[in-house]
Amino acid sequence: MMGLRLLSVATAGALLSQLAGAQTFQRLGTCPTLGCIFPPDQADFLAGQFFDIRLEVHAPVNGSEANGKQPDTAFKLTIAREKSAAVDATTYFKVDEPRLERWNFTWFEDLFAKDAKTPSLVNVTSKAYRRVYLKDPGMYTATLTYNNGSKTVAHWEVRDLEKVRKAKNIILFIGDGMTTNMITAARLIAHKTINGKYQTKMAMDQFPILGHQMTHSIDSFITDSANSATALYTGHKSTVNCLGVYADSSPNVFDDPKVETIAELFHRLTGGAVGIVSTAYIADATPAGLIAHTRDRAQSAPIIDWYLNGIQNYTWTNWTGPDVLFGGGAENFYNSSLGGRTFLNRDYYQEFQKKGYGLAQNLTALKTLKNDTKALGIFSVSNLAKWLDRQVYPNNLKNQNNTADGLKKDATDQPGLLEMTIKAIDILSTRSKDKGFFLMSEAANIDKMMHVLDYERALGDLLEFDNTIKHTIAHLKTLNSLKETLILVTADHGHGFDVMGSVDTKYFNNKTTPRTKRAAIGVYEGSGLSQYSMSGNLSYTEGVHFPSNWDPRYTLFQGVSATPDHKEDYQVNKDGPRTPAVNITAAADYYANPKDSPNGIVYNGTLPVDQAQGVHSLTDVPVFAMGPCQEKFGGVYSAIDIFYGMAECFGLSGKGL
Amino acid sequence: MMGLRLLSVATAGALLSQLAGAQTFQRLGTCPTLGCIFPPDQADFLAGQFFDIRLEVHAPVNGSEANGKQPDTAFKLTIAREKSAAVDATTYFKVDEPRLERWNFTWFEDLFAKDAKTPSLVNVTSKAYRRVYLKDPGMYTATLTYNNGSKTVAHWEVRDLEKVRKAKNIILFIGDGMTTNMITAARLIAHKTINGKYQTKMAMDQFPILGHQMTHSIDSFITDSANSATALYTGHKSTVNCLGVYADSSPNVFDDPKVETIAELFHRLTGGAVGIVSTAYIADATPAGLIAHTRDRAQSAPIIDWYLNGIQNYTWTNWTGPDVLFGGGAENFYNSSLGGRTFLNRDYYQEFQKKGYGLAQNLTALKTLKNDTKALGIFSVSNLAKWLDRQVYPNNLKNQNNTADGLKKDATDQPGLLEMTIKAIDILSTRSKDKGFFLMSEAANIDKMMHVLDYERALGDLLEFDNTIKHTIAHLKTLNSLKETLILVTADHGHGFDVMGSVDTKYFNNKTTPRTKRAAIGVYEGSGLSQYSMSGNLSYTEGVHFPSNWDPRYTLFQGVSATPDHKEDYQVNKDGPRTPAVNITAAADYYANPKDSPNGIVYNGTLPVDQAQGVHSLTDVPVFAMGPCQEKFGGVYSAIDIFYGMAECFGLSGKGL
Repeated sequence: MMGLRLLSVATAGALLSQLAGAQTFQRLGTCPTLGCIFPPDQADFLAGQFFDIRLEVHAPVNGSEANGKQPDTAFKLTIAREKSAAVDATTYFKVDEPRLERWNFTWFEDLFAKDAKTPSLVNVTSKAYRRVYLKDPGMYTATLTYNNGSKTVAHWEVRDLEKVRKAKNIILFIGDGMTTNMITAARLIAHKTINGKYQTKMAMDQFPILGHQMTHSIDSFITDSANSATALYTGHKSTVNCLGVYADSSPNVFDDPKVETIAELFHRLTGGAVGIVSTAYIADATPAGLIAHTRDRAQSAPIIDWYLNGIQNYTWTNWTGPDVLFGGGAENFYNSSLGGRTFLNRDYYQEFQKKGYGLAQNLTALKTLKNDTKALGIFSVSNLAKWLDRQVYPNNLKNQNNTADGLKKDATDQPGLLEMTIKAIDILSTRSKDKGFFLMSEAANIDKMMHVLDYERALGDLLEFDNTIKHTIAHLKTLNSLKETLILVTADHGHGFDVMGSVDTKYFNNKTTPRTKRAAIGVYEGSGLSQYSMSGNLSYTEGVHFPSNWDPRYTLFQGVSATPDHKEDYQVNKDGPRTPAVNITAAADYYANPKDSPNGIVYNGTLPVDQAQGVHSLTDVPVFAMGPCQEKFGGVYSAIDIFYGMAECFGLSGKGL
Repeated sequence: MMGLRLLSVATAGALLSQLAGAQTFQRLGTCPTLGCIFPPDQADFLAGQFFDIRLEVHAPVNGSEANGKQPDTAFKLTIAREKSAAVDATTYFKVDEPRLERWNFTWFEDLFAKDAKTPSLVNVTSKAYRRVYLKDPGMYTATLTYNNGSKTVAHWEVRDLEKVRKAKNIILFIGDGMTTNMITAARLIAHKTINGKYQTKMAMDQFPILGHQMTHSIDSFITDSANSATALYTGHKSTVNCLGVYADSSPNVFDDPKVETIAELFHRLTGGAVGIVSTAYIADATPAGLIAHTRDRAQSAPIIDWYLNGIQNYTWTNWTGPDVLFGGGAENFYNSSLGGRTFLNRDYYQEFQKKGYGLAQNLTALKTLKNDTKALGIFSVSNLAKWLDRQVYPNNLKNQNNTADGLKKDATDQPGLLEMTIKAIDILSTRSKDKGFFLMSEAANIDKMMHVLDYERALGDLLEFDNTIKHTIAHLKTLNSLKETLILVTADHGHGFDVMGSVDTKYFNNKTTPRTKRAAIGVYEGSGLSQYSMSGNLSYTEGVHFPSNWDPRYTLFQGVSATPDHKEDYQVNKDGPRTPAVNITAAADYYANPKDSPNGIVYNGTLPVDQAQGVHSLTDVPVFAMGPCQEKFGGVYSAIDIFYGMAECFGLSGKGL
């Protein structure tokens, strides 16, 4: 036979050493032994990209790995390129010997240990080499020698990329949490079919190149927006919650080993303009990942300072602020005198303006910003309003007390992703001149609305995202910039969403028990046609596609399988974004929110009861590419390959070395 | 402004006519008015492709559309190409006037009518034009005039395709129900990562071209395997349950208007060899769609006759049987004397052998089939065994009483998709010589196992599918056929599956209440690493990738959101495929099966209670392409575009006309 089904049973004993490394509760992701190198084995690099190195030696005091040792202070790191001799790291990188650092940390080996409150303690010795780089493409071997002869070997590859710049500009569109399944559903509700033929299509459907990228983190197969942003922006996967760093084990969340981002590299090496646009609070992970370096994405206040001033506490790349910064999150700009929370209690509207930024705090002001001046635009407290509320249920913008100026009025004059992105392009084009620009534009609320099971609002923001892409392409044409601009559209991770049929809401609301309500659902041929685009009285400008009806009789039978306890009625929530679960005790103990979907069916959730919302999923996500270098983005690959494709297209590999 | 957010409210009255057409309970999909043409408006065709035309005039007797008329007998059909004058259809196609047919049918206008048992009655007059074709590329207008001046206009396009043949062979791999999300999960459990870098990848990951196809049916946004097979094989979308026909409203399920399939066209126009391979019972929709023409996919017995003899009751393409037919479903081959159910109670093993077929009924016999002889291989009753049971839990093959010979022994010597496909290629290559071959190979049990929420068995068969693709590419290389073979891999539709984390099954089994069991689930960083490929004692030949452990401590937190009531424990079912729900009364009224996942959590399902299993979902599905014409399959398009890509690659457009 072909030997394909030949199975052998290896001896059980030989495999025991594998099992320890496969724990979910890990002492330190990327460090299965007691000697740790960051960046770890299998890391890829851009030639010339700044990064830090962190070494750690672990001495477990108790628990399954206890070894009775003191943490080693005599550890050494050597670097070898290809088959050359290994050289001590201080010599290789021409830096002083770093000082020895010491700390300890605890971790739980599994859920039983967590319940019993019996943590495992680890003593650590460590050194960090700051802002080094590797000059030439090829394979490198970093070897840590510790504990009198133990070795950890990290194989690093500096990618061999072309050095010729092919794109003048790159626009990276990120649909946060957006999957192919969601794009299919958005198309269904906003575009008409006749006998199975779509009469119009999504802008994304019309890109010439399609790829899939793998979103998993370095030490867990489900990622978050911080770690996935790090992968897309730096070419290095990391641990959940990390922005622009590998996670070390020290108590300090600002000292983790950093990696330089595409924004930092582009600015440093070309002087080109950088724009960051998001519908989230601007300190959120996806925008912040372009300039932040911390293990803890929740450090919102320092993140705002980093946007303006860059990393100040370590030698690092010289970041002098983006040309455009648009989003929400006013609470990290005005200080405690207005109820905000800022870094060192400064007023960051003032700080940005002192450095020459124009300021807009609503759509009217956005339109008057000068195109030749760098610009800060913050349009509300927290995340910006969802398209569905701005356009269809505008009463929900009232009583929010969320104006960006901190004066607690209602932010009813907000831009959407479209207005922010088009204006950003105008400013970046004007300011960058021949140097070109990099723009990241994020539809953040796709993810945030999927988290609260508000599928209509998620799809509404996805359609706005698609409309933004469509108008961006048209606008670049009028600027004569389309042919020199690489446009990428992707997501950072997924949610497990799909549509499985339709719901007759008239019948659903008429029935009174769960089992009879469920008869309202039509599957297979019973799904029928989408009423969202075929009924109702909302209409749009020619070429703009959104549902004409968000509340038809026959709605979508849609959902995710990972939920808290919740109620479901398959009908749009007209009062604003959903809150599917509420905490009824002091602890994190979530039950279905009785006020949500009052006529709905109660469902017990699948998630742990301390989870209030839906979570991220494993699936590969789509990549759409058009423009110079588009061919690099077809096929199936990892999130980090997006960084290397962009860096190569900008000609950043080994630039200036 | 850009006018993008300009909304206007059209008058309610003007839209009322739209609402009637958007019902889920439809009088007849594709016929919103009272005059029907099949193929309907928006249909595409291959130049020279045989098809039938059906006209119907409806006279609703009662219900919301009642018009008090008798059904029209004086209706007429004209055909016009481009801007030429319209010509009566009998003249255009050079056929006699068809005879007038009459019938009536009933339908329920919505669920309330169905509950109240108040159907709407429709009288019908009809004519059918059999086996016509359109010769030249371009736009055609088919106009039905009826009821004294009403018109239904169907715009038909005969695609303008290249006529030069580029591929000698085409292999179409279909992962039934397979989505990108499932491929990601299969990769996770069978391929190892080190620090986020996959050390090996799926065969599908390595294809040069990636596309997405839209799977919706012609009159419902969720499809089934029959209608989707029709779209892939004929370039015409149709109604759920249809194989190779548009659904008319007559009581006869064999008289619906037919469309010629890729297998029929290829055989008729080139004399090339055709192979059909599936792990399903061979009368199932995906294999049958290559030769069957009926509105009712459940017509298993006639389907076997059609495989051998083609359509006999109408003038149609002259089909003389496939060169290779491998799968399950022995119960449609041996007759009632052994408990089977065959067409006219014939013994189809005899019928096939009388026409010169070699016969194999187990793996041993499969290996001895002569490569120069057409071959029938039927390896069990019903669907073939799942990879997981054949390879890991072989006790489950016992006590099945399912040998293909009808003698009720246990079919323990079954081939998998891999062995059937490689042997099929050998036979097709030998027999086809210079004429080339078309092979369809289907991993049917991905879908069937997703339906019963048996995710491990679905992923096991997906991995076998991937292994089959890998070995097919290698085998074609040894035959020097790879460069002249177009290989396509796709699915017919999805299920809403994803993975959202991991489950500590030791902890899960230790707890006793649902809310405490749910604490065993780890999300985001708590998902950890995949233990399936890092622990356990199953091993495989070099280059072959399956999990080394199907039962690790930390399993996948996975699922679909559309389910019947069921129990879930996130652990592999060692006793064979799951039965998640059981019927406890006489009617179709499903509850969680207490014998399934005994330590699991009970979940109320989302589906109607008459559904025993999961259902299909909306999502676009992936397409992987390599070989001649591969570039036609990138980007985002409809299922029908796969047919036109294959037909063009084979040079079938207008061939011989």
